[in-house]
Amino acid sequence: MEIWLKAHENKNLFTMHRVERFLYRAKSKYQDLAVVDSPQFGRMLLLDGVIQTTIRDEPAYHEMIAHVPLFAHPGPKKVLIIGGGDGGTLREVLRHPEVEKVHLVEIDEQVIEASRRYLPELAVGFDDARVEVHIADGIKHVQGAVDCYDVVIVDSCDPLGPAVGLFNYEFYRNVRGALRKDGILVAQIESPFFNMDLVKQVYGSFTKLFPIVRPYLASIPSYSPGLWSFMLASKKHDPRTPKRKPHEDWKLRYYTAELHSAAFVLPAYYSQAIAEEAEVADQAG
Amino acid sequence: MEIWLKAHENKNLFTMHRVERFLYRAKSKYQDLAVVDSPQFGRMLLLDGVIQTTIRDEPAYHEMIAHVPLFAHPGPKKVLIIGGGDGGTLREVLRHPEVEKVHLVEIDEQVIEASRRYLPELAVGFDDARVEVHIADGIKHVQGAVDCYDVVIVDSCDPLGPAVGLFNYEFYRNVRGALRKDGILVAQIESPFFNMDLVKQVYGSFTKLFPIVRPYLASIPSYSPGLWSFMLASKKHDPRTPKRKPHEDWKLRYYTAELHSAAFVLPAYYSQAIAEEAEVADQAG
Repeated sequence: MEIWLKAHENKNLFTMHRVERFLYRAKSKYQDLAVVDSPQFGRMLLLDGVIQTTIRDEPAYHEMIAHVPLFAHPGPKKVLIIGGGDGGTLREVLRHPEVEKVHLVEIDEQVIEASRRYLPELAVGFDDARVEVHIADGIKHVQGAVDCYDVVIVDSCDPLGPAVGLFNYEFYRNVRGALRKDGILVAQIESPFFNMDLVKQVYGSFTKLFPIVRPYLASIPSYSPGLWSFMLASKKHDPRTPKRKPHEDWKLRYYTAELHSAAFVLPAYYSQAIAEEAEVADQAG
Repeated sequence: MEIWLKAHENKNLFTMHRVERFLYRAKSKYQDLAVVDSPQFGRMLLLDGVIQTTIRDEPAYHEMIAHVPLFAHPGPKKVLIIGGGDGGTLREVLRHPEVEKVHLVEIDEQVIEASRRYLPELAVGFDDARVEVHIADGIKHVQGAVDCYDVVIVDSCDPLGPAVGLFNYEFYRNVRGALRKDGILVAQIESPFFNMDLVKQVYGSFTKLFPIVRPYLASIPSYSPGLWSFMLASKKHDPRTPKRKPHEDWKLRYYTAELHSAAFVLPAYYSQAIAEEAEVADQAG
């Protein structure tokens, strides 16, 4: 018998993954959760049928969403993670000895529970003394936080369901307020190849709010089409030069200090698209 | 009615593309050719069911396989393209005013014919006065060529069927002989994520033959898993710094001089894998 999982991309494209085992399936208040084992990517977590993370390529995503903003900051002491219930981003943030406190605000407790049980490689940080987990809506959390974080990481799902509000200007404005005066915000913003409209929209919001805005890239094979984008906003520091380097003992699989800078170098079509967006904004403003 | 095309990756994974039109299907002496229109990637050329090129993302592949070696060379006058029957690499090579002569050696004439008819955006260079097309086996062509090319580009299919010999040490040794004393070789070598064994094998062959060997990367969404790799070998010039820049009028979609250098910065897992390969070779040698 063959079992295949259909991982939905859009109405014109999907990927089929051979599956060895279905380990977990649940409907939470917010979404449909599943954990499966696949021979190609190892264990995978899916939310509403969309691959969130896989054991084989999760280092690319988690190392790049965490280490780029943290190494871009000269001394990140207090970090907020919005989403990130699988724990992968938290694991990477906690590697930094400068970090004294991490707030992780995840709306869906069942994601954390599933990850603790089925993805222990990712969920290693939840019991660290520096961590406070809030089961709450990240949108509301940043409304009540003022001038208190050095780095805010928005580790969200796709802009559907509970995550829609995490791609809005109002939310980013509140994140700006929650950041200290030399703070850095980073958000995952999907693929520039399939979702350039979203990339441009987030770029437009960020540039209205922050003096320094820089997208950067990583290759995440399980996220069709492979090329993934993050948007970084900084109040003061140029993020392209890392201020420190990872320790060898961390045994990182993707991030290097050299790749930190290279990840900000965009293909021509990407630079052209955001330059057009900036021009439209200038004319409107 | 919905029509879906199954684009095969491996036994554990495949991608399904919605198709609007089937334009062409033929069995040549070497392979099964097809041209289809898809809403996601535009027109696509497939050989033996594997996507070779698509209108929407072909610039990433063709600009990176052509401009990286050509700009790495201080004065590329004579260029050999092995494979490349769709014409996309040829189109990019011909943009360089330094180029006086291009030999394109394609084993399957029907690929060129299909491209001329169905992919005119790619096949623009075949009638250029600087071009000589040889319908022949690239393996034999390089056996008879000595000290005559500045740049050799191996723009092959996957290492199956007629292309197998294009991934062999003997072939690369003959390419070395065909290159002038400061010549550069580049070959597409699949994805480091799915095919690291092949990457390591080619790296091992190249390092036995050339003093400077550098892999570089591009993101090509229609080639699952998106991250694609090229291996560059150079007799003299460090390829990481481009010697000239593309003209604005070329309106490139992917390559930039800054991206040229950034493309050589590898994720940690890739550097680690080829460092291990180099160590094994050292011990054996």
